[in-house]
Amino acid sequence: MYHARILITRRPSILEPEGRAVKHALANLGYDSVKEARMGKLADLTIDVKTKAEAERVATEAAEKLLANPVMEDFSVEVQAAEDVAA
Amino acid sequence: MYHARILITRRPSILEPEGRAVKHALANLGYDSVKEARMGKLADLTIDVKTKAEAERVATEAAEKLLANPVMEDFSVEVQAAEDVAA
Repeated sequence: MYHARILITRRPSILEPEGRAVKHALANLGYDSVKEARMGKLADLTIDVKTKAEAERVATEAAEKLLANPVMEDFSVEVQAAEDVAA
Repeated sequence: MYHARILITRRPSILEPEGRAVKHALANLGYDSVKEARMGKLADLTIDVKTKAEAERVATEAAEKLLANPVMEDFSVEVQAAEDVAA
């Protein structure tokens, strides 16, 4: 059993309006040291396969086919054995 | 200048409906090795302060006061000098 964390961010060239709203909200709270904010998504998948390589393949395909928008978003995948995550 | 990444996940005891939808969609695509899926949020902040400790303080307070729901969500903060991120 493996645990995969997929991080999905909008490409730097593409406007991210929610992050803009967060930046303004933080400025209103007094945090004007925050010069930029960009929001993204994460997905935690529990994958029942035999090898880490197979879990990486499943998680990458899940990101490519379902979770990430290939035109606007980038993603990264990190896989660990489920025992390591629980520890 | 520092770069902070805040990862926000719903607490394990709390139902996460979007992840449930993702799990079903992956099963429909043939990925029935995915036993659980939970979605979360990430925030990337660019913070203009002098020290890493100060950047960590700003990012943690941003999560506590604005980004995360203290009842339902957990968060983690990771800070790097902006040069390290660009490299």
